[in-house]
Amino acid sequence: MNYRNIFQNILPPERLHFDGDIMEFHSKDETEDLHFRPGVVAEPVSTMEVSALIRMAFEHEVPVTAGGARTGLSGGALAIKGGLVLSLRRMNKILLIDEKNHQVIVEPGVITEVLQNAVSEKGLFYAVDPASQGTCTIGGNIAENSGGPRAVKYGVTKDWVLNLEVVLPDGRVIETGANTLKNSTGYNLTGLIVGSEGTLGVVTRATLKLLPLPRFQALMLVPFTSITNACKTVSEIFRAGAMPSAVEFMEHDAMVLTQEFTGNKEISIDPTDKAYLLIEVDGFDESEIMPQCERILSVLEENGSGEVLFAQSDSEKEQLWFLRRRVGEAVKAASIYKEEDTVVPRGMLPDLMLAVKSIGEKYGFRSICYGHAGDGNLHINILRDDLSDQFWSVELNKAIRELFDVVVAMGGTLSGEHGIGLVQKDFMDIAFSPDELSVLKMIKNGFDPKGIMNPGKMFPNS
Amino acid sequence: MNYRNIFQNILPPERLHFDGDIMEFHSKDETEDLHFRPGVVAEPVSTMEVSALIRMAFEHEVPVTAGGARTGLSGGALAIKGGLVLSLRRMNKILLIDEKNHQVIVEPGVITEVLQNAVSEKGLFYAVDPASQGTCTIGGNIAENSGGPRAVKYGVTKDWVLNLEVVLPDGRVIETGANTLKNSTGYNLTGLIVGSEGTLGVVTRATLKLLPLPRFQALMLVPFTSITNACKTVSEIFRAGAMPSAVEFMEHDAMVLTQEFTGNKEISIDPTDKAYLLIEVDGFDESEIMPQCERILSVLEENGSGEVLFAQSDSEKEQLWFLRRRVGEAVKAASIYKEEDTVVPRGMLPDLMLAVKSIGEKYGFRSICYGHAGDGNLHINILRDDLSDQFWSVELNKAIRELFDVVVAMGGTLSGEHGIGLVQKDFMDIAFSPDELSVLKMIKNGFDPKGIMNPGKMFPNS
Repeated sequence: MNYRNIFQNILPPERLHFDGDIMEFHSKDETEDLHFRPGVVAEPVSTMEVSALIRMAFEHEVPVTAGGARTGLSGGALAIKGGLVLSLRRMNKILLIDEKNHQVIVEPGVITEVLQNAVSEKGLFYAVDPASQGTCTIGGNIAENSGGPRAVKYGVTKDWVLNLEVVLPDGRVIETGANTLKNSTGYNLTGLIVGSEGTLGVVTRATLKLLPLPRFQALMLVPFTSITNACKTVSEIFRAGAMPSAVEFMEHDAMVLTQEFTGNKEISIDPTDKAYLLIEVDGFDESEIMPQCERILSVLEENGSGEVLFAQSDSEKEQLWFLRRRVGEAVKAASIYKEEDTVVPRGMLPDLMLAVKSIGEKYGFRSICYGHAGDGNLHINILRDDLSDQFWSVELNKAIRELFDVVVAMGGTLSGEHGIGLVQKDFMDIAFSPDELSVLKMIKNGFDPKGIMNPGKMFPNS
Repeated sequence: MNYRNIFQNILPPERLHFDGDIMEFHSKDETEDLHFRPGVVAEPVSTMEVSALIRMAFEHEVPVTAGGARTGLSGGALAIKGGLVLSLRRMNKILLIDEKNHQVIVEPGVITEVLQNAVSEKGLFYAVDPASQGTCTIGGNIAENSGGPRAVKYGVTKDWVLNLEVVLPDGRVIETGANTLKNSTGYNLTGLIVGSEGTLGVVTRATLKLLPLPRFQALMLVPFTSITNACKTVSEIFRAGAMPSAVEFMEHDAMVLTQEFTGNKEISIDPTDKAYLLIEVDGFDESEIMPQCERILSVLEENGSGEVLFAQSDSEKEQLWFLRRRVGEAVKAASIYKEEDTVVPRGMLPDLMLAVKSIGEKYGFRSICYGHAGDGNLHINILRDDLSDQFWSVELNKAIRELFDVVVAMGGTLSGEHGIGLVQKDFMDIAFSPDELSVLKMIKNGFDPKGIMNPGKMFPNS
């Protein structure tokens, strides 16, 4: 198909690309080593341009894949069928910080941390904090319903999105809701679009909720000599009536790898420690935090934790968070790997960890686990090490199926925050029955009858 | 149609009704004086029975309207096209209180307050608290995405539902998600079903999130001599960094009517007070509450509130909440009325109140307003008093259209927590463009191609 002919009248040539570095940039994301070259990359700067591009793609049945910072972890923004990649990086304006209503209106290309900083200057708080927050964009967060450490107290992206402007697969533009905290008016289209991985339309504007900015944080790193005890502690913290703003889990190996990767070894690691919890409590006032910390400390003691390292200064806090946020990259640098994003009911975490390790033993792979334990969301990184091609391409899928079977039996599911995208789509039959899949497919077909919108994602055999 | 022939083999006769008081009970709800008699009322006790009934209704194209406690405020559970009313009152079991995972699994007929009490005995908290919580059911709350005073801190029903079992309009049974706090696996079907007003299927089981139970509440009643100041104060409370668990607004007349209606006049009301805020702060520890109260008190002072009445005992707290929760009934007892459930961005509340009163003056009606001011959700009760039939049936709709136009222009919408149901459906064109309505309709038709599921609701001209 001659994409130049189709799209050249919509955007000026400097924002319509058929070759060069930008094509390479939009051929990848952060998922394994996947590479898919689009036919054309367009950089619209307005909803009208997005609409015109999609309308033309609809007419010519060109696949459309929206993309931003390419930080995805499920291959969701890869143009696996070629066609048009709609880069939303230039639509990166914060349109309005509405202090009176505690809301912000943004374009999808705004970097998450840029938004956080802009609102915090006004004493306001946008809590969703994926590890990639320094580079990822709000549009991508909306597509994947991203979370992060603070989701345990403050929720994931869907809990912050009040209203969306969306370009439908035929180019029509709709708003999904209203700029209100509550809404029982028609179906929850906003909630349906969030997490739909760009398969139902393209978000061109979002109204997000803000909260007053908590001014105080206490942060502690807690070692455990038993993985099971560390996991068990997580659910007991909540049962004791504490509401921490983060409860992160790291295996011993994750910590070691990250220290080596970053060169930051100021925290001494005892070889007998098998796992760590990083626990944060936040509030508006120091006096609000202390009673919570005390409740947490007594749970830690009851569960046989090692000595708690309390961050004493802002820079100590930053250092601990820096380590936690770099675990993903460190693991990635250590070996070819495959990452799962399993999520289970919080209290099932010890069982999930046992299952991971036992399946690993059975199939002979090494895994490094870490993640948002307060939400029951565990990132399981399976390392290639010196496993054979045959194992990696065939046997591994069996192992992952076995793992997902266990996860679903526990009341859990495939992805807590990365989305299904390309790399998990063939496991969807484990999480959904044929009837359930047919409902998802019915929604997809209703929105996108020509199947042009991010094709080849989410659905098995797509 | 001979409903007896169609359904008699599915349920025993004592749970299949064609006459008697139960038919009358299921002909009404709490919306104005509406009355629609169903053809048959069925009382299933299991998902299998619900599925069998719906499968038969699908085959014979019989309208199906699910119902429970008949406390709805938008006519959502009225069988306006006759047919089958599926009463879910007998499916009222709390199936599992899962303390380890902070979850509860319930059938739809569980009364909201029964659930709250059952989990609070285990130190757990289900926060959604509609005024009708003593009689309404979880199934109805899910259908309408109900809120209540504590929604301002804890969210509405959608924020508490993790997973649903749903019988589709052809009788197939699906689960919408997983029993997890996070989920990025396929479309958010759970979020789509919540608030869909029984038009996409019938919920037969729900997994709900729980939190640790806050043990301490401070409650204050705050008089204002200016409605505008009372409204303005609401958004300033949040801007000052407080996170109250309720911020309720009552006009002077609402307070007077409720005192007269309940006979409870222990709180003295000054005739110069034009409005009241009822403000609650909660926490796990008394020391967590006090700094918040102090911040709130200084905002109140800056905004010229009258003397703050702090509830000193549990019984004083109960009395204040009792008054607040009975406002709706009191207004209803005073006059024929029409209630709107408008919601705007929180800071627009003063403007909304001015608009209500000015439209009232223009058209010559009296209104009494109260509601969940912290969410920008205002219940506007228009009183019939001695207005003519002509006014009530024709002119009033013009006034309401004018009001909704203003609300939508403010970024707000028609319903914050009551749903659209029957009584608001003809205003949907104000909140949604034709393209937006066509998307809602596409979803409806995809789920329910024969249009049997709660027909005549939500969509204009339906």
